Amino acid sequence: MSGVIGIYSKDRNDVSLLTYYGLYALQHRGQVSAGMAVNNNGFVDYFKDLGLAHEVFPKEMIDRFVGNIAIGHVRYARDNSTQLNNAQPLVVGYKQGALALAHDGAIVNFKSLKEELEDNGAIFQSDIDSEVVANLIARYHKDDIEDAVISTLKDIVGTYGLILMNKDMLIGARDPQGIKPLSLGKLGDDTYLLSSETCAFDTVGAKFIRDLAPGEVVFIDDKGVKSVLLESRPRKLCFFETIYFARPDSQLDGNSIYLFRREAGRQLASEHPVEADIVIGAPDSGTVAAIGYAEESKIPYAEGIVKNRYVGRTFIQPNQELRELGVRLKLNPLRENIENKIIVLVDDSIIRGTTIKRTVKMLKDAGAKEVHVRIAAPPVKYTCHLWMDTGARKNLVADQMTLEEIEEMSGADSLRYISVDGLKRSVEDGESFCAGCINGIYPIPKSE
Amino acid sequence: MSGVIGIYSKDRNDVSLLTYYGLYALQHRGQVSAGMAVNNNGFVDYFKDLGLAHEVFPKEMIDRFVGNIAIGHVRYARDNSTQLNNAQPLVVGYKQGALALAHDGAIVNFKSLKEELEDNGAIFQSDIDSEVVANLIARYHKDDIEDAVISTLKDIVGTYGLILMNKDMLIGARDPQGIKPLSLGKLGDDTYLLSSETCAFDTVGAKFIRDLAPGEVVFIDDKGVKSVLLESRPRKLCFFETIYFARPDSQLDGNSIYLFRREAGRQLASEHPVEADIVIGAPDSGTVAAIGYAEESKIPYAEGIVKNRYVGRTFIQPNQELRELGVRLKLNPLRENIENKIIVLVDDSIIRGTTIKRTVKMLKDAGAKEVHVRIAAPPVKYTCHLWMDTGARKNLVADQMTLEEIEEMSGADSLRYISVDGLKRSVEDGESFCAGCINGIYPIPKSE
Amino acid sequence: MSGVIGIYSKDRNDVSLLTYYGLYALQHRGQVSAGMAVNNNGFVDYFKDLGLAHEVFPKEMIDRFVGNIAIGHVRYARDNSTQLNNAQPLVVGYKQGALALAHDGAIVNFKSLKEELEDNGAIFQSDIDSEVVANLIARYHKDDIEDAVISTLKDIVGTYGLILMNKDMLIGARDPQGIKPLSLGKLGDDTYLLSSETCAFDTVGAKFIRDLAPGEVVFIDDKGVKSVLLESRPRKLCFFETIYFARPDSQLDGNSIYLFRREAGRQLASEHPVEADIVIGAPDSGTVAAIGYAEESKIPYAEGIVKNRYVGRTFIQPNQELRELGVRLKLNPLRENIENKIIVLVDDSIIRGTTIKRTVKMLKDAGAKEVHVRIAAPPVKYTCHLWMDTGARKNLVADQMTLEEIEEMSGADSLRYISVDGLKRSVEDGESFCAGCINGIYPIPKSE
Amino acid sequence: MSGVIGIYSKDRNDVSLLTYYGLYALQHRGQVSAGMAVNNNGFVDYFKDLGLAHEVFPKEMIDRFVGNIAIGHVRYARDNSTQLNNAQPLVVGYKQGALALAHDGAIVNFKSLKEELEDNGAIFQSDIDSEVVANLIARYHKDDIEDAVISTLKDIVGTYGLILMNKDMLIGARDPQGIKPLSLGKLGDDTYLLSSETCAFDTVGAKFIRDLAPGEVVFIDDKGVKSVLLESRPRKLCFFETIYFARPDSQLDGNSIYLFRREAGRQLASEHPVEADIVIGAPDSGTVAAIGYAEESKIPYAEGIVKNRYVGRTFIQPNQELRELGVRLKLNPLRENIENKIIVLVDDSIIRGTTIKRTVKMLKDAGAKEVHVRIAAPPVKYTCHLWMDTGARKNLVADQMTLEEIEEMSGADSLRYISVDGLKRSVEDGESFCAGCINGIYPIPKSE
Repeated sequence: MSGVIGIYSKDRNDVSLLTYYGLYALQHRGQVSAGMAVNNNGFVDYFKDLGLAHEVFPKEMIDRFVGNIAIGHVRYARDNSTQLNNAQPLVVGYKQGALALAHDGAIVNFKSLKEELEDNGAIFQSDIDSEVVANLIARYHKDDIEDAVISTLKDIVGTYGLILMNKDMLIGARDPQGIKPLSLGKLGDDTYLLSSETCAFDTVGAKFIRDLAPGEVVFIDDKGVKSVLLESRPRKLCFFETIYFARPDSQLDGNSIYLFRREAGRQLASEHPVEADIVIGAPDSGTVAAIGYAEESKIPYAEGIVKNRYVGRTFIQPNQELRELGVRLKLNPLRENIENKIIVLVDDSIIRGTTIKRTVKMLKDAGAKEVHVRIAAPPVKYTCHLWMDTGARKNLVADQMTLEEIEEMSGADSLRYISVDGLKRSVEDGESFCAGCINGIYPIPKSE
Repeated sequence: MSGVIGIYSKDRNDVSLLTYYGLYALQHRGQVSAGMAVNNNGFVDYFKDLGLAHEVFPKEMIDRFVGNIAIGHVRYARDNSTQLNNAQPLVVGYKQGALALAHDGAIVNFKSLKEELEDNGAIFQSDIDSEVVANLIARYHKDDIEDAVISTLKDIVGTYGLILMNKDMLIGARDPQGIKPLSLGKLGDDTYLLSSETCAFDTVGAKFIRDLAPGEVVFIDDKGVKSVLLESRPRKLCFFETIYFARPDSQLDGNSIYLFRREAGRQLASEHPVEADIVIGAPDSGTVAAIGYAEESKIPYAEGIVKNRYVGRTFIQPNQELRELGVRLKLNPLRENIENKIIVLVDDSIIRGTTIKRTVKMLKDAGAKEVHVRIAAPPVKYTCHLWMDTGARKNLVADQMTLEEIEEMSGADSLRYISVDGLKRSVEDGESFCAGCINGIYPIPKSE
Repeated sequence: MSGVIGIYSKDRNDVSLLTYYGLYALQHRGQVSAGMAVNNNGFVDYFKDLGLAHEVFPKEMIDRFVGNIAIGHVRYARDNSTQLNNAQPLVVGYKQGALALAHDGAIVNFKSLKEELEDNGAIFQSDIDSEVVANLIARYHKDDIEDAVISTLKDIVGTYGLILMNKDMLIGARDPQGIKPLSLGKLGDDTYLLSSETCAFDTVGAKFIRDLAPGEVVFIDDKGVKSVLLESRPRKLCFFETIYFARPDSQLDGNSIYLFRREAGRQLASEHPVEADIVIGAPDSGTVAAIGYAEESKIPYAEGIVKNRYVGRTFIQPNQELRELGVRLKLNPLRENIENKIIVLVDDSIIRGTTIKRTVKMLKDAGAKEVHVRIAAPPVKYTCHLWMDTGARKNLVADQMTLEEIEEMSGADSLRYISVDGLKRSVEDGESFCAGCINGIYPIPKSE
Repeated sequence: MSGVIGIYSKDRNDVSLLTYYGLYALQHRGQVSAGMAVNNNGFVDYFKDLGLAHEVFPKEMIDRFVGNIAIGHVRYARDNSTQLNNAQPLVVGYKQGALALAHDGAIVNFKSLKEELEDNGAIFQSDIDSEVVANLIARYHKDDIEDAVISTLKDIVGTYGLILMNKDMLIGARDPQGIKPLSLGKLGDDTYLLSSETCAFDTVGAKFIRDLAPGEVVFIDDKGVKSVLLESRPRKLCFFETIYFARPDSQLDGNSIYLFRREAGRQLASEHPVEADIVIGAPDSGTVAAIGYAEESKIPYAEGIVKNRYVGRTFIQPNQELRELGVRLKLNPLRENIENKIIVLVDDSIIRGTTIKRTVKMLKDAGAKEVHVRIAAPPVKYTCHLWMDTGARKNLVADQMTLEEIEEMSGADSLRYISVDGLKRSVEDGESFCAGCINGIYPIPKSE
């Protein structure tokens, strides 16, 4: 998972600062590295490093990054790879000048494309998909960057919210089934933005225009926005974007993430009611669904667990003995809401099952009479090759255990998932989503 | 405002790590500096610096801080003073050996005590009250530390949660009216803790034993806890501790902060009902009262404003032009909950009025039909000389304006405060609190 | 200018630490960036960053860099480019696996090679020559790395001390005229080293074996050292290596740098004698030649200028007013050796002339009766395209002014250069050097 | 050992920057901590931290330190104490306002003064002598700071170059026998400076006026410099200042350090001649004496050992195995000057003997035929209670061994010290020095 942003302005030369704020708005999509490339009249300067956006970019650097086009990227590390050379944007020079790329998604035929390029002598300096994309564009680009991008996209099988920049153009592309999101926004009269999520538009004061259609490419330059629709197939936006990844204040393909999650909570309450004293959300991911569950069930919503806000990277972890003594750093149950209460604990999803188990134990230790877990996503049973970091199949508790076993493992008095139908009913058009990790039906088959 | 913690253990020699976690739990009470002193068989080592606890103390230092008694302090800067020499604990040597002090509160007769000491040739290396306390103890301490502490406390007029440590004893003292909080906890069989708030006990897995009584001093050493009750007067715990400062998962003098705030929200709903679509809390301080308001009023609770979690110290602030463009970094309204809605916005208190004005504007800009502000504390009209940082009187909007003027200034469609009676009804014994900043009646008069 | 080092060991797996010390020994060859790549059974890990070797590599990283082959690089920035992406080693993946490269020198046909590669779709992520080398090897490498390296070197016109590493081999190559130095060393029975200068061997306790011959390539693996002599032409080691760049304790092609510089000082004394009280060296570069001048002239050698050792990167530079007031940070004249004395000031070379002017002024201000400048290198009149950072021709004072003009500009009472013949007489075989920057005769013509 | 500096200006308000450069010039006198206090119209701001001056003070801080009086301090840690609370200047408030102190030296009756103060209730926050001085001044200061300082100095037995500052005055004091140095300088018309060494005057472009006389106190304010001579006894400047501590470009009590050391080298050559090929100095401390030895003996001076300039605090130290392998980081012998040569190795002094032993071994390993050690100071046999960090007596090799034993331990072919007479002949008035560590005769007896 990554967050991407791109800004083109006819008149502003401070788009780097706007890009910085955009990365900050997209920070929840990736905390491993942050990067930015800026075009200053044909000269592309860039910087990327491990860390959060505000750690990576000091003010002096942003001040130095004068220019009218910029792209940015925050990265979540698949497979724990934290190497700097996998940070994005990728900036390359080739026959036609400079090119910068930021990609969110996964190219399924990456390996075969790379092998073909290597057979022709290409060298690679990272493990990221963008490097294959850049090589393809460099080979296709004779006269026209637009043709080269289109030819490249035709070669690629996979998912992408892809943003490119050369010296006079910002380019955005969304994969043919719209599995990854990408939106277009506008600031003032002459500044266009592309972003993984609309919350970045809000943050910089820009207006949301529209989502890119599946298979759409936009070319943005001083003549405005030109749209080309490549292969277009029914939209299959990743369900996990709405369930988990996106910020509640974002809108993806017309769906408010907040309203979706609240509705999923309501559906869950209809499907799996329980007599209880209070409804609490697992911090922080279950909050909105818990509010929905409370509304539908008429059981009061309450805060059950308090989170310490002052966590930092350099925090000293407790040793085993202290953990056994009960040292509890990030979360503290609100005993007065828990003790002798029957509690509905709502979370957004279960992947490995370790978090929910720990949370149930915390509530029981604080004196909860009963804890009933309700999960606002169906069981996640399949690993995703299209980008989502669900990890190896053996880590997916729903693939390894029956519902009864999970319920027992969790320590809860009951544990229920929303149904796939319930999930789909939480949005306008539930069929426009990929639910591959839930039902195993992927819009793009695994290659090799 | 400060947070103080002290730990005495007969057998453990890793109390520094527990103190570190305790400071982390108390971090909300002060983010300007953090410090810790540790006794290792008579040798007192210490460190303090500007920053959060996890920034100030690297692991190597905590590992080096071996010992069985420790005290810690986090500091909030009154008057923007961020000088390192005002960080605590204060560690001094005197005739009887080493002494470390951590103080939360304000000594009202500080100036006259200091003058008297200076008349006798004392020098001072900081502006903190603890330095006067240490000088007094040094002068009183002939044979017995307990007598010296008691004599010193008799000289002092003011508020304090005070923790002291010498080579074989941990000492805690609470002011005669209990304006500042201080609690006693226990971990295992042989380890005692003192803390400004009980959330620190939860964090390190300790059990809460009891609050110190107003005017109580405890001496903790290998013989256990010895309690001495100095002058004891009716308890007058600062109301702002419950309203604002304390963590919702703490208990102060038998009151759950969470339940208090929820009840204040309910009282507010009874006193100032309004027909509305949703109730939202001002982030983060109004959340609990908003939940209470929603329960009492039967209007659905919702999240109205999303907060970005990734704020950091080094964040680049937007310039004026970008602010006007609408760059909105920390908070983003949830448009789908706001647009065309009648909204009850609940906050814990109003001091200067600038925050509530900004929040109302944000909601209106996001399309709110009406915004009705409800404040879970009565108007704050008086500056506090007993420690609370309400600033100069001219900054207190409730002192400078009528309710109508504040309402108009805020931009809200209506603005109402909880009554003093309503506030008092939110706790068991509402008369056991100091409401000086609200009604001007202070348990300790201003000196000079 | 750069410093390169490579280490191959059959049995040791801590060559990263040895490489680190080697980079430290070569630090004088480049202070802009430092980098290292380590092979651990086929997995190549690496790190590079701006800064000195000891700043770039923390202990934890070196500890983590387990492996038996490593290469390292320190970089001097031509054209003030301090971008991180130009740091070396360059590490790439290609059809045959990982390849790491460290290069000291300049490829004269870089532009045409790059264009040819770009015509075939290659992309570039830096401005460094190594990236062209890596692309060529990737294209040539079908079955045999040795053939690919040899084919690549045949394509390249330029100067190089080049070190390469793949998963089982360390490779070193010196350009056909030996303009750049590269030496082979050995540590214990099974560890071979390649280095720009022999001082790196001394530092890690290794023995110098021999210089690579001009045009020689060595392939080092578990079978030992295999040498291939490509095109071999008469050696033309860069004179500036001996005059300026190399450390006095290094040996290049059989010449002790110390003895060379002392001899140049003696020649200078013979050619341009002067009656004087003392001989001093310009700090630090003129010290050895000054000792030689003193020996030959029988004028006492003395220290004339004291250098402050505690300079750091973060040092606050004085403003104009303070400079005029006489704030003198790094250097302080030893008044007692200067005042009323006739001084011979010896320096190694003059490029722009600003330094010598400042030094003469400092001595005059300190009361020197006369200052006679003697330069141990002939006038530098030509810019070098083979790697040396002499900058644009207009910066070369010897190209822009006559000797008389330079003398006047310098403020010295007299200023004399060693003759080209005198310089050549300072070494065994003076014809084996390139003196292009002095006489304009370059062993490789400028391309395009 | 410490370095102290103070600046008073009538008109300048940037004396903090001058103080910063002064500390940088005095950095050789202490590298453990650096600190500065600045007076800005009665408000004293200050900062001190562990590290070198340029590490401790960022530009922003110096820019903020506006004011016309400043004092600074660099500290060498006696007894390896690196605690921040022992850094200077000490800044205190007392009845009469702010006072800042910087002290170089040792108060011999520190313990009894401190006990007396503690008996009267004083508390101490550090282990430094200045805190006793500040307490005494605070007690004495009724109407007049000058009287208070004089009374305080009369109480103190010990050595000092002491600089004090209050809101309108800079004060300097030198101990009654002038064991510690302190000099007065002037910059422009209205700015006076006090410094441990004159090199700080040169660095900031100031003129040296004179050394303070033993027992002199100067009070500098807007009326100029007022001098008071307290008890004045014959000057006994510490010999080790000239032998080792002071920078060669400083002048102490009329003696050029450079000329003194060169003359000591000449005396040494007269006393202990040897037939040899070259004379080299132990880096860096033996260089000047070696030049003197070479001049007198007519044996050529040469560089024998090259030092790596790029050492840093964070440097990774080699492990035992690598040390045995011969990893040699800071120093490398110049083999061509060493091999088969008879060498005179000159050093300034021997304390423990470990360094000279290592250096002799390095030369022998590099092929030296013979190594003759010549030491420009007599045997150091007595520990110093007056401030010098010679450590415990058992560490002093000259106290533990005979000359023959030291010679054998060193591995040298011969080892000779300069005689006490020779040393005294190296300066104008050799009797004006304390040679306590050499002859055991101290101008101030050890107390208790």
